[in-house]
Amino acid sequence: MTGPVVALCGGIGGAKLALGLSRVLDARQLTIIVNTGDDFEHLGLSISPDIDTVLYTLGGVADRDRGWGRADETWHFMETLRELGGEHWFQLGDRDLAMHVERTAFLRSGGTLSAFIRRAARAFGIGARILPMTDDPVRTVVDTDAGTLSFQRYFVERRCTPVVQALRFEGAQEAAPAAGVVSALSDLAARAVVICPSNPYLSIDPILAVPGIRDALENTPAPVIAVSPIIAGQAVKGPTVKIMAELGIGATTQSIAAHYQGFIDGLVIDDGDAADAASVSVPVLVTRTLMQDFADRDRLAVDVVSFAAALTSRKVARTAGATR
Amino acid sequence: MTGPVVALCGGIGGAKLALGLSRVLDARQLTIIVNTGDDFEHLGLSISPDIDTVLYTLGGVADRDRGWGRADETWHFMETLRELGGEHWFQLGDRDLAMHVERTAFLRSGGTLSAFIRRAARAFGIGARILPMTDDPVRTVVDTDAGTLSFQRYFVERRCTPVVQALRFEGAQEAAPAAGVVSALSDLAARAVVICPSNPYLSIDPILAVPGIRDALENTPAPVIAVSPIIAGQAVKGPTVKIMAELGIGATTQSIAAHYQGFIDGLVIDDGDAADAASVSVPVLVTRTLMQDFADRDRLAVDVVSFAAALTSRKVARTAGATR
Repeated sequence: MTGPVVALCGGIGGAKLALGLSRVLDARQLTIIVNTGDDFEHLGLSISPDIDTVLYTLGGVADRDRGWGRADETWHFMETLRELGGEHWFQLGDRDLAMHVERTAFLRSGGTLSAFIRRAARAFGIGARILPMTDDPVRTVVDTDAGTLSFQRYFVERRCTPVVQALRFEGAQEAAPAAGVVSALSDLAARAVVICPSNPYLSIDPILAVPGIRDALENTPAPVIAVSPIIAGQAVKGPTVKIMAELGIGATTQSIAAHYQGFIDGLVIDDGDAADAASVSVPVLVTRTLMQDFADRDRLAVDVVSFAAALTSRKVARTAGATR
Repeated sequence: MTGPVVALCGGIGGAKLALGLSRVLDARQLTIIVNTGDDFEHLGLSISPDIDTVLYTLGGVADRDRGWGRADETWHFMETLRELGGEHWFQLGDRDLAMHVERTAFLRSGGTLSAFIRRAARAFGIGARILPMTDDPVRTVVDTDAGTLSFQRYFVERRCTPVVQALRFEGAQEAAPAAGVVSALSDLAARAVVICPSNPYLSIDPILAVPGIRDALENTPAPVIAVSPIIAGQAVKGPTVKIMAELGIGATTQSIAAHYQGFIDGLVIDDGDAADAASVSVPVLVTRTLMQDFADRDRLAVDVVSFAAALTSRKVARTAGATR
């Protein structure tokens, strides 16, 4: 079975599954739609953390131990920035910096983020198509008990310590999906749309907030499969559980299913949460969702795509029913 | 004998003498006025090569073997920039880059180059006062047989290969001397103004092209001493001799004296050019002008300041005579 696959993701956790998909599929069949709500301007540079994580991960240059940034990285720029008294709360590796400087110059000369990503993906030899959710500025803002913080100030500088009261995606209402996003989701030949195990609130919601994307997800002919980022009440990495608690949401399979209700056709959960399967209103695949090595990424990718294949006829029947 | 000393310089050769002066004098008595005609925008960054050479040299972090940039430098940014297909004709070290990124952000937020230099000099523990010739944009442009080139394109990308027809300093007429430049040159207590052995055409002329600076030099009460960058018909480094030849000027002591005529009170030349002393219309000090080690820098600095002291009474008499 072949056909295009679309993945939605944020940074680290999501990018792992995106990598798996790009390895087990013909990479040219894969479109990855990436969150840009984390993007920000820092030291005059345009920084796109999730985009870069996806590029580095699929380009095979990501640092797997650190979990972000590039392998074989050095930090002499940061060292000197500190000596000069510059702002040093956001770590920029010497190699990583080339991406930011190039992107900033490219955007300033009138290029789009989409076009820059295409160029970088070519340079990294990436076969999959990587799209930003939008080429317009969308900025995730966190209302907290310590005031309103831009995402990176909350996430990196404050290490997610302030208590989250609300998340907002400034500019989302005025943004348009990047070229290719809606058409990929609406492709009649698509065999799966995968919501990667990224943070639903920080990484997937900004994508859904861009007008047209949620509609396209609700109406896509392909089965939409979400992979839960929660394993036995915990997130593999990052502040997902803490944020859910602060927003009054239990870190459970049910919460994730409820959050994506209305457009998912299936949910993938970890073996450890098998007991939850019965209480979810969409079909559930129980498997190992923890991705530690490449084999894990590949196996989960295969599981997700197979699960989608199994749901395809069901969705066709359901959709036909709905239009009757 | 004490009193302020002012030095005018460009990059490498000039910075060596500036360093010597800062070592043999009370550094707080030294003001260094630096060429900014070499400044340019590259990859969206504001780069000031001569300013940085002076900062790195006096800050003790310059790479003495390479002759430019910082010691203990790494090149991972450049390596990655090349992989991304970025413009890579201008070498930017990982440590060096911090200066450019910080300066660019500082200027873009409304700060002046002067203020940025003050901050950087403090960070490097530099006692001397370093001033840009101007805070306004002045750009050296080279008319050549290969067309008109911006300075760095001519100097770095084309390695000075095109034949120079003329040098122009765009923006100079509209520029104002940076705060402190004219007052330093006009200080009645000043004991010497030193034209460092920089390229007269590429490094000193842009400074002189800023309205008010040549006037201030012509009227300074202190003896003005130029150190010839020519040793036995050769320049220690750089394209001085090639450019002089292309402009139809012999690479001689006499040419240098003629170029600075009207405001110098003394010329310092190398032992190898002792025979030229008689044919120069201002007093000449013959000494070793080649600066290989720190001792050379210090000794030349002492020679220049002593020479100025010897000329002081003569200048006072001459100036008194002129106003009679």
